[in-house]
Amino acid sequence: MRIDILSAQPQLMESPFAHSIMKRAQEKGLLEVVLHDLHDFSTDEKYRRIDDYQFGGGAGMVLAIEPIHRAIEHLRAEREYEHIIYMTPDGQTLNQKTCNHLSLAGNLIIICGHYKGIDERVREHFVTMEISVGDYVLSGGELPACILVDAIGRLLPGVLGDESSALLDSFQDGILAPPVYTRPADYNGWKVPDILLSGHERKINAWRDEQALLRTQQRRPDLLEE
Amino acid sequence: MRIDILSAQPQLMESPFAHSIMKRAQEKGLLEVVLHDLHDFSTDEKYRRIDDYQFGGGAGMVLAIEPIHRAIEHLRAEREYEHIIYMTPDGQTLNQKTCNHLSLAGNLIIICGHYKGIDERVREHFVTMEISVGDYVLSGGELPACILVDAIGRLLPGVLGDESSALLDSFQDGILAPPVYTRPADYNGWKVPDILLSGHERKINAWRDEQALLRTQQRRPDLLEE
Repeated sequence: MRIDILSAQPQLMESPFAHSIMKRAQEKGLLEVVLHDLHDFSTDEKYRRIDDYQFGGGAGMVLAIEPIHRAIEHLRAEREYEHIIYMTPDGQTLNQKTCNHLSLAGNLIIICGHYKGIDERVREHFVTMEISVGDYVLSGGELPACILVDAIGRLLPGVLGDESSALLDSFQDGILAPPVYTRPADYNGWKVPDILLSGHERKINAWRDEQALLRTQQRRPDLLEE
Repeated sequence: MRIDILSAQPQLMESPFAHSIMKRAQEKGLLEVVLHDLHDFSTDEKYRRIDDYQFGGGAGMVLAIEPIHRAIEHLRAEREYEHIIYMTPDGQTLNQKTCNHLSLAGNLIIICGHYKGIDERVREHFVTMEISVGDYVLSGGELPACILVDAIGRLLPGVLGDESSALLDSFQDGILAPPVYTRPADYNGWKVPDILLSGHERKINAWRDEQALLRTQQRRPDLLEE
């Protein structure tokens, strides 16, 4: 899978993709993430402007349609893309189901908003999916783009060291994960539940199922209603 | 405000804090973000281990309690903290209200989970707030920590260039933002709505209110029910 990210500030996203799991995924050839600076697609050769004041007045700059259109055409001339995704707080709220779905998709273009947003015509004519990572406002779409790539990327077969690991995460089966403990078994008098030290695999699994359900009931009863 | 972030992979978070708005906030002295490597607080001098297998068996490594406890004590010896926040998918879902609230808080410690999570006793005995950025699973808590700091940091007085900008964002008044447009007014035959070119400030504001409400009704009717 190849993911191209269009941004006014691609340098913001360098470190998240240069380390750890996302780095390994790229080194293994399972995922290719390419950052693009929208300034490179500006028609303004002198100042490389990509944003402008909004029509109708008001605070905040808006990313213009032309550099984004040029970037998309440049990429489309090279290969096919299944989705052009715009990261925006008024998009559909990202959840694990969408991540699972997108992990099976073809190549993706992700557009990061910045400043006050992007020209609405980009959304009407180019964007095929609008995604929000949550109900809060950020400086731009760069961190949300990193979130989306990480959430999708770790689901690609071979990316995580242990194949079973992702399947046991919170949300994959609609409930939260149970508590986990590691050594020491007693820390300052705070002890690990006896059951986990018992060696009874069946009882441990039953305890974990019970704890997972309990935690979901207490914290996220909405997940159980779905 | 000072925010200390404890992580097994602090290098992941370098670029988001080194550019743009978060950089300016720090340069202006409005926000101090300090990244800490949990390996520096390991008691294992040779391998600097901070994680271990989970009790009871199963895939995935768990961050141990001791390095996290040592890091917290080290920080607490220097200054007061209002919250110790753990970024975790089973925490309370982050929203703009929580961001507003935390932007008024004192210093914060943020703990990033990694691998399979952290020893439950850290959550029981040290953590005062557990926050999820959304219903999806990520490689670790580093990107969520960046999200939280960005969402809080941009609300600190003086961080955004234009004070009115943050107040007009989506979610601040419970509805989504209206569409925005910038030049050219006609692009490939795709035109900006006439009203925005009319110069009638009152009519423009009325149109924007109407569009914001319409967009919220179409995309997020749940926001209007609250």
